Amino acid sequence: MIVKNYRDVRAQPMLKEPGVTVRWLVSELDEAPGYALRLYEIEPRRATTAHTHYWEHQVFVLAGRGAVIVGDQEALLGEGDMVYIPPGERHQFINRGEQLFRFLMALPIPQNTTG
Amino acid sequence: MIVKNYRDVRAQPMLKEPGVTVRWLVSELDEAPGYALRLYEIEPRRATTAHTHYWEHQVFVLAGRGAVIVGDQEALLGEGDMVYIPPGERHQFINRGEQLFRFLMALPIPQNTTG
Repeated sequence: MIVKNYRDVRAQPMLKEPGVTVRWLVSELDEAPGYALRLYEIEPRRATTAHTHYWEHQVFVLAGRGAVIVGDQEALLGEGDMVYIPPGERHQFINRGEQLFRFLMALPIPQNTTG
Repeated sequence: MIVKNYRDVRAQPMLKEPGVTVRWLVSELDEAPGYALRLYEIEPRRATTAHTHYWEHQVFVLAGRGAVIVGDQEALLGEGDMVYIPPGERHQFINRGEQLFRFLMALPIPQNTTG
């Protein structure tokens, strides 16, 4: 088994998304066969870029206040909220609060190399 | 998209595991194509049964103090800890604290029907 605390995993800046970092908790580097688990943190007044891909996301909010925009819908998010984004839906995550907006994301391997 | 708070998802008692509940946050019922996300809560001095299956688990601890036993290894767990259990490894989760031990579990579909 692998056990680690997310705080011990390096927070990598997203080069094209200022104020956004990602920690690769479990990935193909761990020989996980099916899907990866990542932890994202978005600073206040920052957001991921809106993008679309053919795989799904499952998200669980750990801390902060944010929002997700999927298609023409926006949903506010807080601790304990879960988001499921089906394949092919354009999506964007935004920090709407004054603290870090922190969430887990699960996504299939090997489609996870670009976000 | 689907957005919901885990607190709004019914905590189902595990019939063969007293003191353990599961909330099915995302599952094949949501037409998720690849994997499911569940939230488990274990009461103090309770545990899941040790079991083995051919699919993997990814776990993220949300609250409480617990442990996971995989094979002959035991690891203590607290908030922010992530566990990856490869396919085929026998495992058991135990509450070692005085509060609810709460964790997320991601697992592939359709192998997720029995835990």
